Formats: sequence, C-alpha cells, structure tokens
Amino acid sequence: MAQDTFDFAPLLPAGSPPPAVRWNGLAKYHFIGGNNDGDQVPIEGLKAAADAVLTREGHTLGTYNVGHGPLGYRPLREFLAGKLKRDAGMAVSADDILIVSGSLQAFDLIHGALLERGDTVICERDTYEGMLNRYTRGGINVVGIPLDDGGMRMDALAAALADCKARGTRPKYIYTIPTVQNPTGTIMSVERRTELLRLAAEYGVPVFEDDCYSDLVWTGERPPALYAMSKRADVIHIGSFSKSIAPALRVGFLVAPWTIMSRMLPHKIDAGSGSLEQMMLAEYCMPHFTSHVPALRKGLRAKLETLMESLNEHFGTAAEFDDPKGGIFLWVKLPDTVDTMKLRQAAAKEGVAINPGPEWSTDAKYAGCRMRICFASPSHEQIREGIAVLADVCRREFGVPTRSGNVEKVRA
Amino acid sequence: MAQDTFDFAPLLPAGSPPPAVRWNGLAKYHFIGGNNDGDQVPIEGLKAAADAVLTREGHTLGTYNVGHGPLGYRPLREFLAGKLKRDAGMAVSADDILIVSGSLQAFDLIHGALLERGDTVICERDTYEGMLNRYTRGGINVVGIPLDDGGMRMDALAAALADCKARGTRPKYIYTIPTVQNPTGTIMSVERRTELLRLAAEYGVPVFEDDCYSDLVWTGERPPALYAMSKRADVIHIGSFSKSIAPALRVGFLVAPWTIMSRMLPHKIDAGSGSLEQMMLAEYCMPHFTSHVPALRKGLRAKLETLMESLNEHFGTAAEFDDPKGGIFLWVKLPDTVDTMKLRQAAAKEGVAINPGPEWSTDAKYAGCRMRICFASPSHEQIREGIAVLADVCRREFGVPTRSGNVEKVRA
Repeated sequence: MAQDTFDFAPLLPAGSPPPAVRWNGLAKYHFIGGNNDGDQVPIEGLKAAADAVLTREGHTLGTYNVGHGPLGYRPLREFLAGKLKRDAGMAVSADDILIVSGSLQAFDLIHGALLERGDTVICERDTYEGMLNRYTRGGINVVGIPLDDGGMRMDALAAALADCKARGTRPKYIYTIPTVQNPTGTIMSVERRTELLRLAAEYGVPVFEDDCYSDLVWTGERPPALYAMSKRADVIHIGSFSKSIAPALRVGFLVAPWTIMSRMLPHKIDAGSGSLEQMMLAEYCMPHFTSHVPALRKGLRAKLETLMESLNEHFGTAAEFDDPKGGIFLWVKLPDTVDTMKLRQAAAKEGVAINPGPEWSTDAKYAGCRMRICFASPSHEQIREGIAVLADVCRREFGVPTRSGNVEKVRA
Repeated sequence: MAQDTFDFAPLLPAGSPPPAVRWNGLAKYHFIGGNNDGDQVPIEGLKAAADAVLTREGHTLGTYNVGHGPLGYRPLREFLAGKLKRDAGMAVSADDILIVSGSLQAFDLIHGALLERGDTVICERDTYEGMLNRYTRGGINVVGIPLDDGGMRMDALAAALADCKARGTRPKYIYTIPTVQNPTGTIMSVERRTELLRLAAEYGVPVFEDDCYSDLVWTGERPPALYAMSKRADVIHIGSFSKSIAPALRVGFLVAPWTIMSRMLPHKIDAGSGSLEQMMLAEYCMPHFTSHVPALRKGLRAKLETLMESLNEHFGTAAEFDDPKGGIFLWVKLPDTVDTMKLRQAAAKEGVAINPGPEWSTDAKYAGCRMRICFASPSHEQIREGIAVLADVCRREFGVPTRSGNVEKVRA
C-alpha cells in the first residue's frame, strides 16, 4: 500500500523487545505450550451450555461484564467458590474471586500491584517461562530455589530468605507451583507447605500460589492449597480452566484477600474479560466438571505413558525423568553434553518443537541439558514419531543417544 | 479467615493507584460506559453461530489461538478484511489484522510499543477517557486539539505540531477518532482527513485512528478511513465489535503495517485472546453483519431522539448539544455555573450515573460544565425518567434549569 513507507523505528523506546517474525504454523510434532487434548474438549456439553445461557441471558451481553461488575460473571465465581472448597479446602466466597483472561492476566495484575523495577522475588529454580519472561522484562531480580521430588526445598528457601534479609532485601513474594509443579511435575507435601507458610510468616513475605495444574493430579486427590492452610491472609492464589477444559477459552481466576485484591483491581483496565466464555463455563461446569476432569486425566495419563515409553525406546538411558504426579508436561534430562537450546533449533528443522530447559529455569547452566516435553496435544502416534525424530536429531547433533544404548534399553 | 491479617501496604510501589472499592451494582439510570442495547443483541443468530462453529471446530479449542497463531482466528480476520475494504476503503489482508481482547488491549499494545514516560502525544481535546487515564498513569504529555462540528480543527493541529517542533519535541502520534468522535459525535470530512495526513507527513508523526464507533453512522455511509487514505503506511487503525454486536464479548481488532505490527506483537503476552468469541463472531457476521447493523442503528437513533427530547423537556435551554452523526453518546453543555464533577456525585445518590466532562477532556476547565450521556443501554422509559431526575438534582444543586425556562422550552 505504501510507496513512501513510514519508518517507525526512530519512535521506539530504547530497549524495545525484538520484532516479531511472521507466524509459520504449528510444528508437525508440537511438544510445546500448554495445549490440551483437542479430542477431549467437551464439545457437546459446551454447545448445550452456550445455547442454554444465551437463551436465558444473552441480552446481558449488551452490558460490560454482563452487569456483574469487575470481578466477572457471578455464577462462575460461585461455581469456583464451591470447587475450591471441595478440592482445595479454601473457605472463599464469590466476592473473593476475580475472573481473568487466562492466568497470565493474573500474573500481570499481581506484577502491576506489587512489583517495580529492581524488586526481588523468590521462585522455584525451574519454573514457568511466562513468569520468567515477565521478570526479565520488568527488571525483577529472581532468586531460584532448587527442587527435589517433593517440590521446592525448604532448607534452600530458608537460606535464601536469610540471605535476602542479611542483604537488607525484602522479597515481594514467594512464587510457587506446589501442586503439579511446572515443569517438574512434583507435588509439595502438607508438611512442606506448613514449613513454607511458617518461613513466609517469619520473614514477612507473602506467597503467590500458582494452582493452574492442580486439577490434573493422577490420583484425583491433592493437598490443601497454601491459601487454605494460611491463617494470615498472606496468599494470592491463581487458577485456570485452560488445563481442565480448554486453553483457547482464556479463562482463569485469581483469589486474594481484599487487602490486596483491592490493589490489583485498579490494574485491570480492560473493561472486563470475555463474558460469553465465562457464562458458558459456568453453565457447563456446574453439572459436568466433576465427571469431565477424571476422564480427561485418564486420557492424559495414557499419553504420558506413551511419551515415557517412546523416550525409553528411542533415547534409552540418555533420557532421565521422574514420572510426574500429574499435568501435561515431562521434564527430561539429557546427557550433559547436550545443549537443548541448540537441540531446539535443529529439531525445529525436522518439524519437532520442544521447550529448551534454560527458558524454564533461573539457572541456565543447570537446565542447559534439560527440556520440557508437553504431551497433551499431540496424538499417541505423533508422540511416538516425534520422539523418534527428536532422538535422531539429538544423535546427529550431539552423538547421544547411541544406537546400542537404545537397543539395550529396549531389550531390558 | 485471618486472625493475624498480613499487611500488604508496605510492599506496594510508591505511587500505586488508590484501592478499588467494592462494586455496588449498576445505577438505576445508567448513562455511562459504552454499553449497548441489550434488546438488540442478536441472540438467536449468535446461538446458531456458536452451535455451528463448535460442532465443526470445537476440538481446536484444545490449542491456544485454536492453532491460528498470534493474530487470532483467521476467518474473523478474513471477514474483517472484507468489511474494512467495503466500508472504509482499506486494502488490507487477514495478515494485517490482529484480533485483540477489546480495543483497550490495542491501546495497551500501541502504548507498549511506542510510548515511554515523558513522551508527548497529540489527541482531540475532548476524547476517550480510557485513553486519557492510560496517559496519566504512563506519565505521557498530552496536547489536546480543539474540535468544531467537523472534528479536530486542522488550524489548531498545525499550530500544535509547529509548537512541538519549536520545542524540539516529536510527538509519538496523533490520536484521533475521526468517524463519530467520542464524546462529540462529529465526523471528520474527507478534506480534513487529507489535511491531517498532510500535516502528519510534514512533521513525521504517525496517526492512531480509533474507528470503534464507525459502524454507527446514522446514514450508513462513512468517509474512507485515514488508514485507507494514507499512502505512507503511517496509520495504526483500531476497531471493535463492542458497538456493532456486544461489548461483553470483548473482541476488537488492530490493523497496522508490519513495520509496527511486528513491534506491537511482542507486547501481546497473553497467550491469545478468547477464541470462542472470535469463532462465534466470524460465523455470525459473515452472513448477518450487514443486515444486523442497520437495524441496530435505527433503534439507537430512536433512543437518541428520546434523550434529546427529554433534555429539551427537562433542561430547556440549559442543556446545549449538537445532534451527533451517530454513536451511543451525547456531549451536553450545561450552564457555566454547573460543575459536572459535583453533579455526578449528587446524581449518583439519586440513582443517575453520568460521565462528567473533565474525565473526557484534556481541558478540565472547558469541560467542567459538560457531561457525556450514553443512551444505548437504558430503555426509552429509563431515559425519560433518568433525565427528569437529573434535571431535579441539577436544579437543587446549581439552580439550573429553572422551572420557568423549562416550561417556555416545552411550549416553544
């Protein structure tokens, strides 16, 4: 359209992020992002819910927030209050819950209310990339706490808090994913949760509990939320329907005491989150959530089995991982000689998309030979094929896995 | 829940906005916000669209952005490309259009890409509150350009640009609502648009065209968009489905040359806007948009007539306004002795919500006796009653309108 194209570059602030590149479609073997199993989206139930709620209340879409105010559609908040009490032991009401446009918006509200450039937060060493990116952009100092198979290590947390105090720094919060940690798939025990809350109280640091994956514990039983266990109203809790129903709906929620909810709400200047999706979810979830989720978990567990089998078959002992307690991702260690940032590039050329460890960790060196593999979205066949291709690429680029190793493993 | 409640206050950054207060429901006579006519939400069409698209593509909700990439659901972008060509003369493709979570997200993306504290922008003196709030929070200097019944005055714009240049300041953009200006309801002529683009080119300043109300021109005909008229790819254009279909859906769009779109996309870190609403809108709008909107306009025009009659009846000559060229709001001047910030407070106690002029203007003094009245959402009866109550409150607080004045006006 333009013969004499305007140059925007001189108008950009210093330090602008690099420009986007044109999108080229999803990878053939798409092991990244929190996508869910498309075959398990409850289409018939959602259709019936949309029809019912539009028939009954469709005219309310003419009003922002369908007239239910800035916290969002009230029946969805009421459903959540019941669900959070039943599943996570949280004694909350609809007035304590804010519906957001996906949990990432909750991150932004918490960030907006509490953080400024130069602040310090504590989180798990290996953690959610979306959070780490925001810290990097926002100039936030991040203290990563190592994990073991029980989640964040409390000895390391105690040491980090003491160290911050010695340096005169009060961290703005402790960010944790205690129930199906991303990316490690661990669950923090009740005892460790108690200790975390005790340390938080001792040092006067609030807790930011990311509960987005907690519906996907294989056993169907989870420890009480930190929010439920705290007696001090010092926990901000977020959750999502992305993992239990469908991520493209972009519906999450934030639970917080009014002392801090009232400071986050002024940062929600979007004129409300999409109401139809809230309405449809409320209508669907009230009767169906408790039967849908166990069926979803069963299907996801089966895909995880396929993934672990495929890794054993094609990588042999070169791929180390713990069987996660739930979720949609597997955190895999490759031999130390493998650089997963480079593996990502090489694999992409063969149609395989992976999350390299350094993007999911506060410790790039530790995570350099690690990767996150998401298994919910690809089919069983795609998982098998994709892992085989990935093993070929890894062998070509880094010499591991060796063929003999695989054969031995398969025969074992 | 807390015996020993945690105090978040010491953790808040300096300069945090004041805390939110608990929401108390909509006012009985609700003349604020861009709400639409609930009775004209096309419920049956939306239901059929949701059903069809969920049946055909519901499983894609398992993938972020339903697999269509960061620009959003492709059929909706294709619908928009056709609509923008037909209605606004814009030669754009689906690849030039980004779907956003309401036009406010577009504001935030433009802000994020182009503005930093201390920057200067040019806009219409009386303009959208959501924009002014963002400038205030972001520490942006705003130069307001007076309007007349043809929109932004070009003599004043030329003087402002020259003045900025003389001070060594290059404004980051000229923000304008040329087609049904908010709040004045004016439409900028083609000649004036040409002059605006000439001035923008002369001073090397891009244009930010807010086209959110352009579907609601009473005559059904609108001038070409500034985006269409520019030969220099120096216009960023935004629009919305809030005014044409329903605001609670939160679906807007942003059209921009890739030179700047590629710098805005890195600021969209929300993992996509809600897909179901995009899918339903695409399915509904392709066959129905061009018949729905004229019917909607007719109903809105009838409500405007009721509002203008009610103002004439109850305020008489004390309320001055121009008949707007379209839209959902009326910009009303009261006698100079009236302070609409105070009127807002007094009216709220009687159940009447109005937008006081100073919140919608860069010139609080000029706008001090002005107010914005939104007429799409309340019923004809609510408009009549609400304006009667507002006149009573105004008389009690400011002595105008006088009763005799009203009677004369009604008899005239």
